[in-house]
Amino acid sequence: MIGIGVIGYGYWGPNLARCVADTDGCALVGIADSSPAALMRAGKRHPSAKLYDSWRDLIADPRIDAVLIATPVSTHFDLALNALRARKHVLVEKPITATSEEARILIDVASHHRLVLMVDHTFVYTSAVQKISDIIGSGDLGDLFYYDSTRVNLGLFQRDVNVIWDLAVHDLSILDFVLAERPVAVSASGAGHIRGSLENMAHLTLFYPGGAVAHLNVNWLAPVKVRQTLIGGSRRMIVYNDLDPIEKIKIYDRGVTVGDGHEDIDPRVSYRTGDMWAPQLSVKEALLTELEHFVDCIETRATPITSGASGLHVVETLECAMASLRQRGHPVEIEALMRAS
Amino acid sequence: MIGIGVIGYGYWGPNLARCVADTDGCALVGIADSSPAALMRAGKRHPSAKLYDSWRDLIADPRIDAVLIATPVSTHFDLALNALRARKHVLVEKPITATSEEARILIDVASHHRLVLMVDHTFVYTSAVQKISDIIGSGDLGDLFYYDSTRVNLGLFQRDVNVIWDLAVHDLSILDFVLAERPVAVSASGAGHIRGSLENMAHLTLFYPGGAVAHLNVNWLAPVKVRQTLIGGSRRMIVYNDLDPIEKIKIYDRGVTVGDGHEDIDPRVSYRTGDMWAPQLSVKEALLTELEHFVDCIETRATPITSGASGLHVVETLECAMASLRQRGHPVEIEALMRAS
Amino acid sequence: MIGIGVIGYGYWGPNLARCVADTDGCALVGIADSSPAALMRAGKRHPSAKLYDSWRDLIADPRIDAVLIATPVSTHFDLALNALRARKHVLVEKPITATSEEARILIDVASHHRLVLMVDHTFVYTSAVQKISDIIGSGDLGDLFYYDSTRVNLGLFQRDVNVIWDLAVHDLSILDFVLAERPVAVSASGAGHIRGSLENMAHLTLFYPGGAVAHLNVNWLAPVKVRQTLIGGSRRMIVYNDLDPIEKIKIYDRGVTVGDGHEDIDPRVSYRTGDMWAPQLSVKEALLTELEHFVDCIETRATPITSGASGLHVVETLECAMASLRQRGHPVEIEALMRAS
Amino acid sequence: MIGIGVIGYGYWGPNLARCVADTDGCALVGIADSSPAALMRAGKRHPSAKLYDSWRDLIADPRIDAVLIATPVSTHFDLALNALRARKHVLVEKPITATSEEARILIDVASHHRLVLMVDHTFVYTSAVQKISDIIGSGDLGDLFYYDSTRVNLGLFQRDVNVIWDLAVHDLSILDFVLAERPVAVSASGAGHIRGSLENMAHLTLFYPGGAVAHLNVNWLAPVKVRQTLIGGSRRMIVYNDLDPIEKIKIYDRGVTVGDGHEDIDPRVSYRTGDMWAPQLSVKEALLTELEHFVDCIETRATPITSGASGLHVVETLECAMASLRQRGHPVEIEALMRAS
Repeated sequence: MIGIGVIGYGYWGPNLARCVADTDGCALVGIADSSPAALMRAGKRHPSAKLYDSWRDLIADPRIDAVLIATPVSTHFDLALNALRARKHVLVEKPITATSEEARILIDVASHHRLVLMVDHTFVYTSAVQKISDIIGSGDLGDLFYYDSTRVNLGLFQRDVNVIWDLAVHDLSILDFVLAERPVAVSASGAGHIRGSLENMAHLTLFYPGGAVAHLNVNWLAPVKVRQTLIGGSRRMIVYNDLDPIEKIKIYDRGVTVGDGHEDIDPRVSYRTGDMWAPQLSVKEALLTELEHFVDCIETRATPITSGASGLHVVETLECAMASLRQRGHPVEIEALMRAS
Repeated sequence: MIGIGVIGYGYWGPNLARCVADTDGCALVGIADSSPAALMRAGKRHPSAKLYDSWRDLIADPRIDAVLIATPVSTHFDLALNALRARKHVLVEKPITATSEEARILIDVASHHRLVLMVDHTFVYTSAVQKISDIIGSGDLGDLFYYDSTRVNLGLFQRDVNVIWDLAVHDLSILDFVLAERPVAVSASGAGHIRGSLENMAHLTLFYPGGAVAHLNVNWLAPVKVRQTLIGGSRRMIVYNDLDPIEKIKIYDRGVTVGDGHEDIDPRVSYRTGDMWAPQLSVKEALLTELEHFVDCIETRATPITSGASGLHVVETLECAMASLRQRGHPVEIEALMRAS
Repeated sequence: MIGIGVIGYGYWGPNLARCVADTDGCALVGIADSSPAALMRAGKRHPSAKLYDSWRDLIADPRIDAVLIATPVSTHFDLALNALRARKHVLVEKPITATSEEARILIDVASHHRLVLMVDHTFVYTSAVQKISDIIGSGDLGDLFYYDSTRVNLGLFQRDVNVIWDLAVHDLSILDFVLAERPVAVSASGAGHIRGSLENMAHLTLFYPGGAVAHLNVNWLAPVKVRQTLIGGSRRMIVYNDLDPIEKIKIYDRGVTVGDGHEDIDPRVSYRTGDMWAPQLSVKEALLTELEHFVDCIETRATPITSGASGLHVVETLECAMASLRQRGHPVEIEALMRAS
Repeated sequence: MIGIGVIGYGYWGPNLARCVADTDGCALVGIADSSPAALMRAGKRHPSAKLYDSWRDLIADPRIDAVLIATPVSTHFDLALNALRARKHVLVEKPITATSEEARILIDVASHHRLVLMVDHTFVYTSAVQKISDIIGSGDLGDLFYYDSTRVNLGLFQRDVNVIWDLAVHDLSILDFVLAERPVAVSASGAGHIRGSLENMAHLTLFYPGGAVAHLNVNWLAPVKVRQTLIGGSRRMIVYNDLDPIEKIKIYDRGVTVGDGHEDIDPRVSYRTGDMWAPQLSVKEALLTELEHFVDCIETRATPITSGASGLHVVETLECAMASLRQRGHPVEIEALMRAS
């Protein structure tokens, strides 16, 4: 039985705590939060868990084998580092750290102590994204042309991160999971419309070595909530609507083909349309799947699907996006930027 | 009674011819197309119109006072220039020309001969776009934050223009109509996935002097058709879905406000939600409204809403987008590029 | 070449005339309408057609082999009967006649003169309904449980027929085509909310010998347009949304099965869910398919899919529905009513 | 502080228990269920509540002032009667009882002991239904023409009640709340497609004295979930889609008017279309609102909005629907049936 401690009981922590309580092989030992109100809520929901007003005391608790960190991004590194040094396995909320340098350090420390370091890229554990990964991996789409995501709503303004670090990170973690390659360059533009606040909308284009393009449209100031991604291939295409309660994924047997055209139209290129189908998806909560995987990795010392390396990849891309955004879309090459830093 | 000649009876010409026949104050005198098959179709639908296999003969017809040009973009300049020199008023399909230089010449020639030069920016004449223009003009949205459009479908590959010149031109013409200011810079990225063919997908970001941002997502290889634009303001927001047969425009009484937040959340910025309403819109066909306006401008020598200058603005922005696209999103300033050319 | 005459150029007639002009093997010879305005519209669109202000003159025209009747229902019988007596093949707009007695007479006369008598049950010729017919015919749905249709909108109030004769007739013609059996009884209720006007909303339940049930919800006073039909079988189910421009038909691999339940729930009955798919459908206009079939039946003397007998079936069911509606849903058996009449 | 006991911890009981724990002024004292597995689940979620394997012991607990009953319908009467005799206030899950006779007895007993008897008509406490009630009450719709509800999905087959008692009861409780009058007659038809099981689909028409009609379409065997109600008035109309997370209610400024028509069309009746708007709705959970109301009624001895009388009205209508269903839609008058029983 793995003893689990949750640090941070604000917006996301309660979900982590609830899922720990519902997962076999682990027990919710303690919860830490500096806010008395948050601790009171935690105690009401989890009367058997020990409450800490300081995370330092929690990671000192010998009954705790692993720590789940759900605090503001700026604190991830310090908390995770101390937890690892206290020989705790660590699951950090996304993004893993505020800088790629910090992520590299955590990876080294975890590896040196043979501890599991995992990042909470929740979407990777949804049945929808795993189905998309299967489809792309099987080659059914043909050549992958693009991944085009719109992730907008009337969202809460974060104090310490902008909309890219809050929303685009989801798509970057999905891309890191479903694509075999990493982007070579990023062009990003964005705007902060509230004086003194960070960017609330942004558009990112990721260029992949094989010619595929990923585009992310993220916005905290949209009147409606949209969670739609179009994935285009030469043979088939996918529409992934995460807001559809049942048919989140629709696969279209549509693609490009060579054919005749009439005047005005390119005579060589035509397209093909066929049936659409929506595969049945499991309704299991992603966070449960994720925690079971975390527990399994601790027991078997396996490398998590969303390892520290995945977290690093995402943060490196975020840093490139920020560098490009400050130059109004000037493309930034990931390798160049990483060498420079 | 104004005599009208239509040049080009391929994809769009038949619509122009039909609307001329249904518009008071003008008569469909002749139709020109180099394709015998197209001419046969034209004759079947419009038995009273004279058919020309050469546009030169059509513009030589003294009964024709005005010419509607619906041919490939690369031919717009040559046809329009000759028509103007033959003292015909001209309505050119969008984009007005293949280069801004050509557009400037047409504007000068038309002005010198006191002829009406109009570009067929059809969307400007829809009741939806005119309602959006009224709302923005009235200040009801508060400060304008962004215009974010998705215009994708499984589209016909044009031989002589890429997806930007085919689809983004619609949003650029709408922006030129509804916004009081012009963009200062453009960042664009795109990709051509079919070997030897032009770009079939692109993303454009337009930067406006007042801080507003416009973003256009255009794609010829999307499995589903999307025509949705989000327009965000500080006080209200609009969702414009051109595919909705009835409720094309929804106005949301939602915006940003200053308020309290809890930990993790920016304490200064909050948002407000209220009712949504969808105004009743006229169902009159836009092309009819447009042709009535063209006839009216000819009779009164008024400057069209979509004048040659509007056409020029759109083409200048397209040229900037192309320059940026070739540099993977490197921002291009419109004034700088225009000075350079 | 079959000479065609169209009688009635009001709401539907222009579509018939247009499709005749676009169909091979027949020619639009004449158009008759008592309204000068309608005739003028007809002449503008079809300059080569002869215009008649009296249908009697049209059916006297020897160049006309077949007549299409698109006039108010109350006139169908008189016009069709005279056309048949004048040895013209006849296609009558739905419903074929105002009474089943009239329909029987037309069938006898047509058969006696070996003429084609066809009713314009347009939906039967749509690719969506033909696909539904194929699926039901193949047995893929398992046992057919129900056909449940909602056909409502803000509709024009007809002078001489109520909402059942205007809208329910569509579903009745579809049911007559896709089901192997005819209903045994009908229960109908309805209401006329406008003083002095006919019923503007109604609900029909049709009982089939095999246990299947069909339900039709028709309404002229609905704020939104709905054209959705659910078709349930023991193995699969169909959702047919005629307003969806592309995916009109969705087939759900869902059905009932026997399994365990927990307390409160029937322990024997459970259900099964699987994938959904939307077959690609032809986009050919149904009316063109229908007219080609009419021409083919005239040339080969074949019995049309929507023959006079189909028209009679639909009218008999309509008469039962009216009888039940007047008794607030009291069920009316078709055979009993027909014997009585 | 009012002590609450929950009887039945199957499908609905856990929601009641959770909301009791979150409602001020009351405390969850005990939970009873005959199933050990259910009791174990209850104990895990509510460690402080006393667990009873017999409801008789729970209602004997002097710390319990009020009982919430969430057991199969057939047991409602016996449990509620015993609870009232033990001087407990009672909230019964819908429908209040299996027969109107039983409901009348509970009402008498509760009134005799001055106890609160309330039925769990949850929808009445949703912000959507309360908004609909406000709109109808204000007269904004003009004359009420109809209430037309579709409530279908792939549902669990109940052992002791058919689809009418499971789903139609929701609409009947809404109608009892939002309309000033009660129906005079009911016509219902239905079918049970699973051998040996109860009706799984049904259609009800309710006739109101003022001419309004209510129609309910309920189905346990639909491939998709639909929760949509159209409410039509002479001046305005409402579309209530309970599955829309945000815009559950849309009000259409559309109605009938007198105007000119053309041939075929009733010249006296036309319709009017205007804007649509969706009012902002509270997102508070209905069950919390309901329990606060229950507690308030106990403290002030006020009559609940969903009193025993409301429960009786619904059951009387259900009994009429069953009587009509057995006669294939033969209309049944409520007063006549009640006199007969």
